[in-house]
Amino acid sequence: MPEPNGKAEYLVGVDFGGTKIYAGVFDTKLSLIGSAKFSTKPQRGAGAVIERIGRCVRDAVDECDLTLKQVKAVGVGAPGVVDPESGRVLVAPNLDWKDVPLQKELQKDLDLPVFADNDCNLSTLAVHAHELHGKPRHLVGIFVGTGIGGGLIINGELYGGASNAAGEIGHMVIQIGGPKCSCGNEGCFEALASRTAIFRKILAAVKQGQKTVLTEALGDDLKGLRSGDLRRAIRRGDKLVEGIVKEAAEYTGLAVANLLNLLNPEVVALGGGVIEALEEEMLPTISKVAREHAMPGTGKGTSILASTLGDHAGIVGGAVLARRMTK
Amino acid sequence: MPEPNGKAEYLVGVDFGGTKIYAGVFDTKLSLIGSAKFSTKPQRGAGAVIERIGRCVRDAVDECDLTLKQVKAVGVGAPGVVDPESGRVLVAPNLDWKDVPLQKELQKDLDLPVFADNDCNLSTLAVHAHELHGKPRHLVGIFVGTGIGGGLIINGELYGGASNAAGEIGHMVIQIGGPKCSCGNEGCFEALASRTAIFRKILAAVKQGQKTVLTEALGDDLKGLRSGDLRRAIRRGDKLVEGIVKEAAEYTGLAVANLLNLLNPEVVALGGGVIEALEEEMLPTISKVAREHAMPGTGKGTSILASTLGDHAGIVGGAVLARRMTK
Repeated sequence: MPEPNGKAEYLVGVDFGGTKIYAGVFDTKLSLIGSAKFSTKPQRGAGAVIERIGRCVRDAVDECDLTLKQVKAVGVGAPGVVDPESGRVLVAPNLDWKDVPLQKELQKDLDLPVFADNDCNLSTLAVHAHELHGKPRHLVGIFVGTGIGGGLIINGELYGGASNAAGEIGHMVIQIGGPKCSCGNEGCFEALASRTAIFRKILAAVKQGQKTVLTEALGDDLKGLRSGDLRRAIRRGDKLVEGIVKEAAEYTGLAVANLLNLLNPEVVALGGGVIEALEEEMLPTISKVAREHAMPGTGKGTSILASTLGDHAGIVGGAVLARRMTK
Repeated sequence: MPEPNGKAEYLVGVDFGGTKIYAGVFDTKLSLIGSAKFSTKPQRGAGAVIERIGRCVRDAVDECDLTLKQVKAVGVGAPGVVDPESGRVLVAPNLDWKDVPLQKELQKDLDLPVFADNDCNLSTLAVHAHELHGKPRHLVGIFVGTGIGGGLIINGELYGGASNAAGEIGHMVIQIGGPKCSCGNEGCFEALASRTAIFRKILAAVKQGQKTVLTEALGDDLKGLRSGDLRRAIRRGDKLVEGIVKEAAEYTGLAVANLLNLLNPEVVALGGGVIEALEEEMLPTISKVAREHAMPGTGKGTSILASTLGDHAGIVGGAVLARRMTK
């Protein structure tokens, strides 16, 4: 691993998925100074994606009028199972990656210390270490976007399990025989409450002739639909969208209850694009359903909150990891 | 707390629920030397139950030709949320207990050091510390009987969560809108795969006129039906019982998959009366379904096993706790 430059004090956090690469440059207090976004283009293969991550980091640093020499370390969140010791991505189905030496390759490219972990683990670390100042002993992070991911803090530390694959909250089956999930199972939390699930239901309803204001701007195929459109539709009184979003919130509340009953954490923190866009619409229902289904003794002292980090959770988590590993 | 007698070397483990109290006397190597069983009689109130636990301990000790003076400490597993620091039972719905000072009262009665925890936590501790010699770093214990309980070992230690209420595996909802559970929720794992659930389904099938060899000995109301009867019926070729037990195994496999995906443990250990009686019939299906539903990266290295401790898990766990706390 390259030695960090003693005078370098900036940290870079990177978050990437099947669609985009997002890199942020942070000062020592973890304030974001600048960022860059690239598309991932996973079809070009792992080598090309890692090269794009490198360029995204350089662009973000340049955007801040800094050079790589002023960067102490880089932390990267990847959408799959990552071995944090070696920084290898063991498996990432969305990218079609198997055993990719992400840390080693990116380190070679940037000549900087690089650390890697699962993206939702890093988002959870950001919420725990940065947003909540490391206070909760046990915390569950749930990130609702295109899919649903999660991370666990147990006894103040990220919990990875036997092979750092823990935290697959999105693939908890909560409705046996329910809708098919991208993972092949049926009735996963993700197949019921992710943005993909919500959009699928709205589209099916439109095809059945139900009315929604969404079609006015987007047409019947709802092309380009985003989570923010749902919020605006609900605020315009759209009952169809309101009902479907409420259902997703109920499923989420039930998943939260399962986690309260299993893990009895101090905090359940919700994040991701869907929660960011629809916090006001969803959080009260999520909380209510979760508390109604929690066993006596669990849940009472738990706070169920929406993270304020929004889209930044992943890059903040990367920076937290980079700082932690070079202390 | 009374000081343990320096020469006393025997340990007593107690496991009690809504129906019975079971106390076992163990030597320093945790071999069971003798035991006693009482009915609980919870309707007489907490004071009377604690007095019965005390008598059960005395009887077990006397059974071994020992006296209380030769006992170093007592560990008790209670069916509810227990604060292990104070040994208070914070809530135990089956017993209708709220904030009962179990440890303090039993200590006063026996004049011995007493320690208490949740019964399934202690059964899990027994599997981990005694049966598996403390080897797995992360282990999930699942106990299938009248109800379904669980316990978690994380980083080699019992995990209690924020208020020692973690491990409510039986109340993980896996079938939204499924059968009503004793807890008030619907579709809990317990409402689908416990002995109560299996018996309820068999009884309903009999009422609908379906045939089973079980009615030959027990009559149409299946009075006195036990888990062992199911095993014998299946081995006699009873298709109804076979099908219902297989379904319960499938539900259990799915619950195990959820736990693999969430916690990525090294070991999932199954125990309790249903598993003890029907291990051969259920374990292959449980394992198969669990592995089919586990995400890539989780589950592969996990062993899914049936504990050999059977009905003794709880009292062994009590003895492990008693030994650990007086070392």
